[in-house]
This record gives sequence, C-alpha cells and structure tokens, in this order.
Amino acid sequence: MNLPEVDIIGTGNLATNLAPALEQNGFIVNNIYGRSQESAKEIANRLYQATAVNDLDFSSSKSSVFFITISDDAIEEVAREIILPDDAIIAHTSGTKSLSALGYTASPNFGVFYPVQTFSKAKRVNFENVPVLIEGGNRFTEKTLLKMAKKLSSTVELASSSQRRMVHLAAIFAGNFTNAMMAHANELMATANFDLQLLGPLVEETLNKSILLGPEVAQTGPARRGDLEVLDEHMQMLEKFPELQETYRNISQQILDRYDEES
Amino acid sequence: MNLPEVDIIGTGNLATNLAPALEQNGFIVNNIYGRSQESAKEIANRLYQATAVNDLDFSSSKSSVFFITISDDAIEEVAREIILPDDAIIAHTSGTKSLSALGYTASPNFGVFYPVQTFSKAKRVNFENVPVLIEGGNRFTEKTLLKMAKKLSSTVELASSSQRRMVHLAAIFAGNFTNAMMAHANELMATANFDLQLLGPLVEETLNKSILLGPEVAQTGPARRGDLEVLDEHMQMLEKFPELQETYRNISQQILDRYDEES
Repeated sequence: MNLPEVDIIGTGNLATNLAPALEQNGFIVNNIYGRSQESAKEIANRLYQATAVNDLDFSSSKSSVFFITISDDAIEEVAREIILPDDAIIAHTSGTKSLSALGYTASPNFGVFYPVQTFSKAKRVNFENVPVLIEGGNRFTEKTLLKMAKKLSSTVELASSSQRRMVHLAAIFAGNFTNAMMAHANELMATANFDLQLLGPLVEETLNKSILLGPEVAQTGPARRGDLEVLDEHMQMLEKFPELQETYRNISQQILDRYDEES
Repeated sequence: MNLPEVDIIGTGNLATNLAPALEQNGFIVNNIYGRSQESAKEIANRLYQATAVNDLDFSSSKSSVFFITISDDAIEEVAREIILPDDAIIAHTSGTKSLSALGYTASPNFGVFYPVQTFSKAKRVNFENVPVLIEGGNRFTEKTLLKMAKKLSSTVELASSSQRRMVHLAAIFAGNFTNAMMAHANELMATANFDLQLLGPLVEETLNKSILLGPEVAQTGPARRGDLEVLDEHMQMLEKFPELQETYRNISQQILDRYDEES
C-alpha cells in the first residue's frame, strides 16, 4: 500500500515527537492543528511541508489519516466538531479513553494508536523503541493503523480498550510512581549534600534487572531481607519527613508481606 | 604508592563482584574468607591466585587491606574475632553501619568503602560506573581507601557515617521502592496479558529524565495534571487489588499535594 498522508490534531508533547517521526519514516504530514496557531507553527516549521491550521474543517485536506493527540478531556468534543474527507481514518492516542470516544465522528473509520511512552518537548524520543498498541473499529482501520505503526516502531500489538486501559495503569506505576520515588530520594540526597546523579547507576541496574529477571527476583533491600532493625532505624531517620515515612512504611510492609507469604 | 594486596571477608553478591574488579585493576587478591569453604572456593577459583580460607586469623596474610563484605548484623562480631597483620587496614562496605562498628578491631586503621550499587551473583556489574563513598578513621586509612577506590571507579567521594546512612536510605527509595512499583506494574500487565517488557522503554526514558532533568520536572501523569476523573477511574479499576489501590492513593495524593502547593 502507499503510505497514507497524515494530519495531526494537537501540539503537545506527543505531537512534537510523532510528527517528525512520521516524516522520517516516509509519511507526508500535511497539517498540524492547534487552537493556538503559534504552537502549531512551532511544530509545522520543523517539518518538510506541513501547514499550521486552527480550523477543524479538514474536508479539503489531502490526508487520509488523522491523529488526535490532545488531552483526554477534549477528545470527544473534537470528535464531534471535526470534519473529515470521505473514508478518512481518525485515531486517538490516549491510554485511557475507549475506542467509542470517537463514535461521535461522522467517519466509520476510527481507531486507537497508543504509544506506550512518556514524551517531552525538550527531549526527543526514538520512535523505533516505542511500543504502539492498536485498536480499530473496523478491519480496514485496524489494518491501516497496524501497518503505519510498524513503519515507526519495532513493537506493535493489538489491544482492546480494556487491555490498553490496564497497560496505561501499569505504566503509571512503572513510570509516574517510580519517578515519585526518585523525588523522595532526591529530597534525602539533598539533606546529605549529594546530587541525585550519584544514584544513577544504581537506578539503571535495578530497573534493568527488574525488566530482565522480573521484579520479584530483582527485589533486594532491608524489607526483602526482613531486616526489622534497619527498617526501624530508617523510620526514625524519616521522622522529619512524614510523607516519606508514610511511603516507607507502606511499601516496606508490602514487600515484607509479599516475601513472607513465600517463605 | 604500590597497590596494596587485598583479602576479602565474605562470599556474597558484593564479594562476587568486587574480587574480580580488584584483580582487573591490578590488585592482588590473596584470600577469600567464607564460613563455608565451598562458597569461598567458588569466588577464589575464578581469580588468578586467591585461596579460600575459613579461619579469621590473617596474621600471616601478605595482604594489607581487608574488606568486610558480610551482612550488617555480622560486622561487629567479625571485627571482634579477626586477627590482622600489623598496620593492616580493615574496611566494611555497608551503607548503614557507622565507622565505629569497626572500633572493636585491634587495628587503629579502620574505614568504610561503600559502593552505591545493587549487586547480584548472576549479573556482573562494571565497577567503573559504581560510585564509592569513603570514610577513614585516620588520615592514612582515608588516603589509602580513596586511592584504591579511584583505581576501580570514576566516581569516588568522601562521606561521613551520617551522610552515607542518608545516601543509603535514598538508595532504597530509588532502587528497592522503584522495583516494588515495577512488581505492581507487572501484576497489572499480567491481567491484560502483556509482558512487563513492553514497559521497558517507558521506564528507561522516565528514569533518564528523572536523573537528567530532576524528578520534579520529570513528573508526568494524571496526578501531576490534577486529573481527578482519571484518578477515580483508576481507583475503581484497582478495587480487586487492595495493595495496589493503597499505593495508588498514597503516591497520587503526594503528587497532587506537591504540585498543588506550587501552582
């Protein structure tokens, strides 16, 4: 099949990463839609021939695939307002929203294209390594989105809305919550006059092991060893940090319970 | 200075990684002490000329530096029992135990050599990237341990016992607790019939950003955005997982509080 041409609705972190990734993989990106023309221009200017637009009437666009990369709350509203060329495919990119959120579009060809990654404007991500989960409301949409995803990424899977929602929730534990632990670590490192970077190799090794051997095998530390003396000492050290103390107690108790049951 | 020769007390994860790292950097390792001769042999056999021993009388050892790599609980007992050559340096490798835990040794030359890393027997760590924190009971010990650490690692720092204890506690948040989050993620991924590996690139990117930009800047997710609708949905999805629900509530609340104060 010829590569479909693409328009992107949204100017956030994902759009900033997805648009150039599409171009690098041979797709033509025609329009970048933003409510603010400014931010749409910022992305369009870095592309080969894209135009910044701020009107949701795409009836004269040459594109046949439309990616919605805006916040979850706004998806249904845009789906209601957008005007698409005949037979166009429209896909949202949310981990949470179900496929049916696009049921409001006039097009029968709606689907989901969910990249399992955290994106920033400041730090470009190599899309080759980004797993993409695909869902299509019909066979044509599913097939097209699968083929497009495979041009961008080496890991592409079909996932139902409920599977995807669960992967997204797992990703919050693996991403957002591990980062919250890093914030706590950072606070403690600062009190000892050390930089968080000192823990870089430890974090890297821990999470490599976690992915490689599985987190059950990779778990170490005083709670894993059932070393109650060290746990008590740490609770005392954290008396001036009630938030950290609460987290320390909660997570340590869960590790104790988990490994106690096993032994 | 000539490189001091070394004996290692202990046969655990650290000894398994430290002994070959010392050899590769030009140190002669003479003896590996283990209560079980078997496990001492396992390490000694992979070294150039080391001998497995199970007697704490080292008075005739050619080594001048002795690393204690055993569990925290046993350090003081070994310090009491060990017999060292004159002027030998003895160092423990614990993140938690203070320098004074070695006050029981006959030698005045005691110190701490704490590698900030998680070690396994199964997966060899490159010591070049392992930060080492040094403390010495006197100037001679401090100087010698600093020089030795710098032969092994590119990141060597002095740290007092209380600084080191705080770094160790921070390392528990950054290592053990992030891994506990991975265990939760793993449980959720399994219910969706996906492998944890799908989250590998996300975890890597998240923690690279956390170290590079700082965890405050790197924080993303529904709690960071104050998206209460998604938080409610997730709490419902976790109803069958009370442990995960507790963690979700705890960490999300902390993220909400932290970023609410700022805005």
